[in-house]
Amino acid sequence: MINTSPLSGMMELSPAAQIEFDRLKNIIHQTYESFGYSSIDTPVLERAEVLLAKAGGETEKQIYRFKRGDADLAMRFDLTVPLARYVVEHQNELAFPFRRAHIGKVYRGERAQKGRFREFYQCDVDVIGRGDLELFYDAEVLAIIAAVFTKFDLGSFTLRINNRKLLKQFFSFLEIMDSAEVLRILDKADKIGEASVKKELKLLRLNGLEINKVLAFSKIRGTLEDVRGQLKKVDAGLLKALEKPLAELEEINGLLLAMGIKQNNFCFDLAIARGLDYYTGMVFETSLDEHSGLGSVCSGGRYDNLTGTFSKQKMPGVGASIGLTRLFSQLLELGIVKDGAQKTPSQLLVLPLGEKLEEALVIAQKCREVGLKVETYGGSRNLKKQLQYANSSNCPWALILGDDELSSKKWTLKNMVSGEQKTVTTAHQIKLAIEKA
Amino acid sequence: MINTSPLSGMMELSPAAQIEFDRLKNIIHQTYESFGYSSIDTPVLERAEVLLAKAGGETEKQIYRFKRGDADLAMRFDLTVPLARYVVEHQNELAFPFRRAHIGKVYRGERAQKGRFREFYQCDVDVIGRGDLELFYDAEVLAIIAAVFTKFDLGSFTLRINNRKLLKQFFSFLEIMDSAEVLRILDKADKIGEASVKKELKLLRLNGLEINKVLAFSKIRGTLEDVRGQLKKVDAGLLKALEKPLAELEEINGLLLAMGIKQNNFCFDLAIARGLDYYTGMVFETSLDEHSGLGSVCSGGRYDNLTGTFSKQKMPGVGASIGLTRLFSQLLELGIVKDGAQKTPSQLLVLPLGEKLEEALVIAQKCREVGLKVETYGGSRNLKKQLQYANSSNCPWALILGDDELSSKKWTLKNMVSGEQKTVTTAHQIKLAIEKA
Repeated sequence: MINTSPLSGMMELSPAAQIEFDRLKNIIHQTYESFGYSSIDTPVLERAEVLLAKAGGETEKQIYRFKRGDADLAMRFDLTVPLARYVVEHQNELAFPFRRAHIGKVYRGERAQKGRFREFYQCDVDVIGRGDLELFYDAEVLAIIAAVFTKFDLGSFTLRINNRKLLKQFFSFLEIMDSAEVLRILDKADKIGEASVKKELKLLRLNGLEINKVLAFSKIRGTLEDVRGQLKKVDAGLLKALEKPLAELEEINGLLLAMGIKQNNFCFDLAIARGLDYYTGMVFETSLDEHSGLGSVCSGGRYDNLTGTFSKQKMPGVGASIGLTRLFSQLLELGIVKDGAQKTPSQLLVLPLGEKLEEALVIAQKCREVGLKVETYGGSRNLKKQLQYANSSNCPWALILGDDELSSKKWTLKNMVSGEQKTVTTAHQIKLAIEKA
Repeated sequence: MINTSPLSGMMELSPAAQIEFDRLKNIIHQTYESFGYSSIDTPVLERAEVLLAKAGGETEKQIYRFKRGDADLAMRFDLTVPLARYVVEHQNELAFPFRRAHIGKVYRGERAQKGRFREFYQCDVDVIGRGDLELFYDAEVLAIIAAVFTKFDLGSFTLRINNRKLLKQFFSFLEIMDSAEVLRILDKADKIGEASVKKELKLLRLNGLEINKVLAFSKIRGTLEDVRGQLKKVDAGLLKALEKPLAELEEINGLLLAMGIKQNNFCFDLAIARGLDYYTGMVFETSLDEHSGLGSVCSGGRYDNLTGTFSKQKMPGVGASIGLTRLFSQLLELGIVKDGAQKTPSQLLVLPLGEKLEEALVIAQKCREVGLKVETYGGSRNLKKQLQYANSSNCPWALILGDDELSSKKWTLKNMVSGEQKTVTTAHQIKLAIEKA
């Protein structure tokens, strides 16, 4: 027989786990929409030249690419390149700044390993300006992500915010040229330890004073006030040298508070750099405070020119992405989300025990009409078989309709969890009972 | 510059058209769920041997298939083969009969032509039994499709229902062996005309009487009573010969009426055969009565053995599929749906005309908290630029917050369609005004 498991690196859930996954996906979707972001949907397949126009070596290695006749096709590896293409292609149909949401699957033929997926959902939110784009939108994207994680209700979380300009001007203040290399080394500090970081920085010809300043700077984290105070300690001249990027952080800080983001849900963290070259301003990561081992569960930032390879028009943007497939698999593994709370889409299972189905169907339909999700067991009339199905389906409520119930018009509503039963006579009563529980 | 159009045969919509597409997709999703169908999500990429296990020549030609290292991969061309694999793989997590809904993209590298898509959404609903599956589920699938098209509100529609067993026994009654060939010829009657049909049937060595009976049979359509009456006219012996399949139609007829399907939304049509070999019982197509040129907008039927290539366990099923991408493109073209009713996800656009954004943001957030979808214009404070954005964004309502409005706490709510303005002071008032309109 043929192997029926899904391909390795591709998540496939049981119906119960899928309900929980979809619940989180819906929270993201509804939050993005509540801020007025337009959902778009682009093809999974694109011309390879479009996807690879700006891509680097890793991407070229991982992309699923194939020939079809003359066409050189590839499966999208993110939703950002398709966004750039979409914005250029549809620019006359869009109002700028264009707020777009996109939740879709992307593909990366990575080496299979734990926590890495070859097919996974990205849940992206971006604002694209034409010509320029105010700092307000940076704050809005952060506020949206804070709103999503508040609704996720996975314990406390922190958006750790930084600004690439702050990093750039810090290195320029210290007259360190090779800032990209320094950032790369700092980025692995958690893995290799401070001693090794120092050693590597030395190899870059940083002197002891510079190394100390760089390390002290990279540890700065806290409120804006904390940041200012700590910067002053690193070097008295820094506050002045970093005046402009600090003013940007200050503006974002004020906007976040105005949008109702709680002070304990964000901080400024000067260690955040984000590997990707295209970020040019605000950058951020998100950590679940009680599960810091998960690393960043959502990140993003500001980029100066989204559409460079497709258009001469300069289009700056700011955005964030939640890698939901990976996050969900981690939450499942840690037992933080369970594929349990709700196991079926249906709220009510109608069990027609009498010979004739028709009357039961009329009642089931009435229950749907008052807004309930209702399934009818349509198999054997045998009570034992019906209860067996009721147990395995995990539907929380059952409506028992034997010949007696139908002729007396008094139906038995059973709570399948507690076992309690009550008599009901209308769809409305059923709805009330289910909603009250 | 690189070509930024999507690949030919792949639908990509403007944000406004996407809203309408998603509205229809949501109707389908919610209707499937209201009958208790579990949504599943399987990978787009599968092992080629899985997808092609049972496939015929057309599919092998159209499938997107490629090698990756040792792996022979392919993109799914329907949701039925993945369902078969899923049911076998997850059978211990499922309650049977398993009701599953799946809305997802599928891929067929067809020759590009009008109305044909290479990437398109299928919206499938199926029930899978283990061992056997009652006729009730056939009726339920039909009732679900009727509920979807009722909610679509695209004018009157008709489910045209038949039974492959009826066809089989009819041909066996006439002792016509080559029934598949006869059906193939009848199927193109609309295209080639009756004279050509007769000619081709003659080539199959049917005699004149047989040809007349076959043609008369294939024109039978109506209520169950109509069907019986017309069958009797074709041949007095038919009612008895077709007793069993007619009893199935009768049972389905009664169940549909019990589930509240209106008599004018379905009929029995003995011309419906469905090309696919795997249907073995009930088959149906759906036509929009005022747009019969569209052909069938949803079809499906009963199959005896879904999982034959993956398991020894016999698993019969019944299902239906809506090809939403194709349907939507046809409806757009005919002007039946418009990308117009709602152009943005947001209901309210907050225009902060004063220098300080913060107060406007607090108000916008309050509006979100009462359940409105709200976007804030974050660009220039210039009134002209803001109104320009308001017009191009097509948001139906704007809340104008200049310095005067903020200091007096009397905000101006403007209906962007009628131009009417009114003064409001709370988020709740705004919500009421928007909902009342």
